Amino acid sequence: MPRRERERQILDVAIQVFAKRGYHGASVDEIAESAGISKPMVYLYLDSKEGLFLACLRREADRLVGAFQGAATASGASPELRLHAGLLAFFAFVSEHRDSWVVLHRQASELSEAIAAAVAEARRAVMAEVADLVRAGIAEGGPTAQLTDEDADFVTHALVGAADSLTDWMARHPDQSPEGVTLRLMNMVWVGMGRVLEGEAWKPVTPLTG
Amino acid sequence: MPRRERERQILDVAIQVFAKRGYHGASVDEIAESAGISKPMVYLYLDSKEGLFLACLRREADRLVGAFQGAATASGASPELRLHAGLLAFFAFVSEHRDSWVVLHRQASELSEAIAAAVAEARRAVMAEVADLVRAGIAEGGPTAQLTDEDADFVTHALVGAADSLTDWMARHPDQSPEGVTLRLMNMVWVGMGRVLEGEAWKPVTPLTG
Repeated sequence: MPRRERERQILDVAIQVFAKRGYHGASVDEIAESAGISKPMVYLYLDSKEGLFLACLRREADRLVGAFQGAATASGASPELRLHAGLLAFFAFVSEHRDSWVVLHRQASELSEAIAAAVAEARRAVMAEVADLVRAGIAEGGPTAQLTDEDADFVTHALVGAADSLTDWMARHPDQSPEGVTLRLMNMVWVGMGRVLEGEAWKPVTPLTG
Repeated sequence: MPRRERERQILDVAIQVFAKRGYHGASVDEIAESAGISKPMVYLYLDSKEGLFLACLRREADRLVGAFQGAATASGASPELRLHAGLLAFFAFVSEHRDSWVVLHRQASELSEAIAAAVAEARRAVMAEVADLVRAGIAEGGPTAQLTDEDADFVTHALVGAADSLTDWMARHPDQSPEGVTLRLMNMVWVGMGRVLEGEAWKPVTPLTG
């Protein structure tokens, strides 16, 4: 078996074990055994438990960012359709690769600063992409659009945070498709943003009586 | 100085040190010195570094949840005004107690399962409160409202995730007031939800041409 293929196989198993046991609970013994490979060979290829974890993390982060960017770029249409495609790719990834998401989202921050930095970098790449789409969407609102770059950055943070949190909702509603989750989120955020662009504003109006 | 007061003083200092150095980097020596208290007395009162951290965490989590619940209940008006008051209390807390938020949000998950469970419990308390307000807001939409409890839970996850993520935006825009952040978020989410309740739906309509 070629080295590349062998490494892929080790990482596939390692992601499952890390997701199930956590970094500290996972053992290279279990990973080697589940992958049907000797422990010395795992060390030969991936150096250490930390090296193994980092390799998993980098591969899955690249996949996730790539899926988002690929979808958001490929659909090539209006900013809102590209945002929709990107969000759908994100939710589909989390739905299909739950183990990868658990490792990326829940476990990575526990470890070294190098690992936390790698995860933060992946997050920044996605946020930059989302911010571009939101800004483009605002620009399409035409000269009446009163939202600034600061607003676009605000919407981006809200949207990315909402998407993160909704992965928990998805885990509790396994019958819901990524398509459905994406549509609901677009409805909440994009419809709201469109209305705000049209000048509708929410204000805390206190009732006159009472 | 009464014990209660002395403990409060130790925790105030400990929060700052944990926020600055992280759990592993913080030393009881530095905390004792900054609080102007002997190290044995810190151990006498709070047992261990983990005990100290846990005491910080519990106090700040109670404060944050209390601030949210107090505001959301006290304003006593419509669900949307109560949600607004609760969100404002949250952003004001994070703005005024940045150190507490860093410890609660970024560091707690690194540690023991007991600590992670305490944080998860605080989060659940806030989410339950938000879900009640969202459900009440939907119910006020009257018989034409077509959103279910599942939808309310969805909106709650999105809203809480967005609020979490927006604390990063606030840190990068220190000139923005908690009031401004709250208004922007209400505009995005509540206006969007109102429109969806009225039957407006976002759909990924592909342009006919191209």
